[in-house]
Amino acid sequence: MDIGKLLAERTKYMTASEIRELLKWATVDVISFGGGMPDPSTFPVEDIQKIVNYVLEAYPHKALQYGSTEGVYELRQEIAKFSEEHHGIKTKAENVLVTVGSQEALELLGRVFINPGDVVITENPTYLAALQAWRVYQPKLVGIPMDEHGMIVELLEDKVRELLARGERIKFIYTIPTAQNPTGITMTQDRRKYLLEVAERYDLLIVEDDPYSYFLFEPIQVAPIKALDKSDRVIYLSTASKIFAPGFRLGWVVASEEVIKWFYLAKQSLNLNTSNFVQYIFLEGLRRGVVTKNLPRVKELYKRKRDAMLAALETYMPEGVRWTRPSGGMFVWATVPPQIDTRELLRKAVTQYKVAFIPGHGFFVDESVKNAMRLNFTYPSFEQINEGIRRLALAIKEA
Amino acid sequence: MDIGKLLAERTKYMTASEIRELLKWATVDVISFGGGMPDPSTFPVEDIQKIVNYVLEAYPHKALQYGSTEGVYELRQEIAKFSEEHHGIKTKAENVLVTVGSQEALELLGRVFINPGDVVITENPTYLAALQAWRVYQPKLVGIPMDEHGMIVELLEDKVRELLARGERIKFIYTIPTAQNPTGITMTQDRRKYLLEVAERYDLLIVEDDPYSYFLFEPIQVAPIKALDKSDRVIYLSTASKIFAPGFRLGWVVASEEVIKWFYLAKQSLNLNTSNFVQYIFLEGLRRGVVTKNLPRVKELYKRKRDAMLAALETYMPEGVRWTRPSGGMFVWATVPPQIDTRELLRKAVTQYKVAFIPGHGFFVDESVKNAMRLNFTYPSFEQINEGIRRLALAIKEA
Repeated sequence: MDIGKLLAERTKYMTASEIRELLKWATVDVISFGGGMPDPSTFPVEDIQKIVNYVLEAYPHKALQYGSTEGVYELRQEIAKFSEEHHGIKTKAENVLVTVGSQEALELLGRVFINPGDVVITENPTYLAALQAWRVYQPKLVGIPMDEHGMIVELLEDKVRELLARGERIKFIYTIPTAQNPTGITMTQDRRKYLLEVAERYDLLIVEDDPYSYFLFEPIQVAPIKALDKSDRVIYLSTASKIFAPGFRLGWVVASEEVIKWFYLAKQSLNLNTSNFVQYIFLEGLRRGVVTKNLPRVKELYKRKRDAMLAALETYMPEGVRWTRPSGGMFVWATVPPQIDTRELLRKAVTQYKVAFIPGHGFFVDESVKNAMRLNFTYPSFEQINEGIRRLALAIKEA
Repeated sequence: MDIGKLLAERTKYMTASEIRELLKWATVDVISFGGGMPDPSTFPVEDIQKIVNYVLEAYPHKALQYGSTEGVYELRQEIAKFSEEHHGIKTKAENVLVTVGSQEALELLGRVFINPGDVVITENPTYLAALQAWRVYQPKLVGIPMDEHGMIVELLEDKVRELLARGERIKFIYTIPTAQNPTGITMTQDRRKYLLEVAERYDLLIVEDDPYSYFLFEPIQVAPIKALDKSDRVIYLSTASKIFAPGFRLGWVVASEEVIKWFYLAKQSLNLNTSNFVQYIFLEGLRRGVVTKNLPRVKELYKRKRDAMLAALETYMPEGVRWTRPSGGMFVWATVPPQIDTRELLRKAVTQYKVAFIPGHGFFVDESVKNAMRLNFTYPSFEQINEGIRRLALAIKEA
């Protein structure tokens, strides 16, 4: 049967993620800097085992049953508490919605807000899978350049004015202000305030994606934009994937009750609710302080891995290759000489040199930069980091 | 901040599910026949506890890590095997995709196939949450009447001819052939063959939703339509929710590799992957035969609950109330005299008589029938079934 003739128009915006394709290679003899996976040694396995046994003994019938679309109420309470303790975000259970990873929150944003032709503003480069999630909704993606202090908010304001003067409908500004994906850059506190001012001045919504603020390696003092937000214009996303375990697929949204209501309606059709079982496990993880206890260890490990990657880059990379010194998170962002297209480089790197990375193209709203790459330092071992960067340097030299 | 002005057009098709709203009442003093929840005593808690401990000891790093969008390969293999053993569906891992409950599969169908104005054909009445999932994609929903043998396929064929003559684009025919939701009716084997013939004749796709064939109370010999399918035109959906536990949110799709590829691309943006942890638990559940071992007990319990509900209906209901004798599944479908609108009845039933059900309206593509209701018999206790039907009969008498 010919399926092609039955496909909806929007399927032409559905393309395979390079990251996901790369995850497939991670198991073979290729050293992969591709994915964004945590080091499995950071998973608090013993604590999880205790928790799971407790959950199945204490309230199996709730944990194994259907649940409410917004999430388990006690977990929403606990997340509200956690948000205040860790991020200074004052909120309450009613402002929290539990999602199937942060990816679902990105989908909800597209689904609830984006009509074809609407404008979504992002840092440029930004998180590739966010762009991919929204493309089926056909927004105009507008990228704002970054410098070492994060999104250049002066340029943002100019752009907003220009867009509004043209009558464009700006739906939201998407930012990963802390240890950004893919650059590792953290937006300064001044810029954060300025960004919020711009949003207030032009009555715009901000989406703050914050998976990485748990892993800031430098003593940078920044608050989430959501913590500064007085007018409920920030939708804040975070996730258990990097601080507990990604195998649970659990993320959350903190936003105004009106946004939560729309996300709730949209989520009903997507999957009714996030796994109750998984929610109760994370609830106990928060209650018992497993996450809080685990964090310093994880941060220390990732800092050492970052340093190992920076040292290897320093040792092996030829002239003309530059890279960021990530303030936190999971990635180094590297730029090779402009005559090298990293998508082409990848093929050779994988087949001949047995090393993988994500070409930078897809992180740009317009794919305008072709000589960049994202390198993950959290998943590979210290040995693999050194050997992989050595191989990558050889591949670049040949190119 | 005014969110209203930022909403996408499609939000006007997002409405709260009556079922989900009703789930909220299930905990208070109202006896609820509303949801579609399993009896929690059917959850194989002890087996799950053993399995979870095994998974966390044997391969914690796989179970707690990100996974592939299609699902854990070994689980896909095991589901393929299960499909053959339980349903006579010959398939392989590559034809299986694991979803966040069957609800996600319904969303994937809409996302991949439906353009605004496309036709989707369903039984009338049909599963309310399927209609809701697709509404955001703005199909024309065409309902085919049922009799006690299931969808009247003669009428389907006439309708298909008429639609095609008008140049309509039919995307798929959605059916729940076994112990249908909401009616409990099982389509005869002859009808199934005829339905497949019609699909072949007009080159149409069939979506077979099959959560309930595990619970057929009568000795009816039927095969899934998918088991008869020679031309890969049936997309088959099932779920662990009713045979293991709904708290895991785990379902699956069996379809051609081309359909699986499109679902995979669509699912990437929705949530990257279904929880690996949950997948490994169900994998072990299948491997150890927990599901197979549990089924006769569950079926026996649900049969007794159905019989209890039928007996209570017989005892208490006034003249003019009719109901189906469900061949399996979880629901009785009842019809009250035409002057009673069950949506209005519901309010009184809940507030005054402390009993809840789902009004039938939303199960019809055109909400054309206003005097029907769906009654769940699996979740309430035997006592609640008797007492709840007694209360409901009083409410109907008053109306």
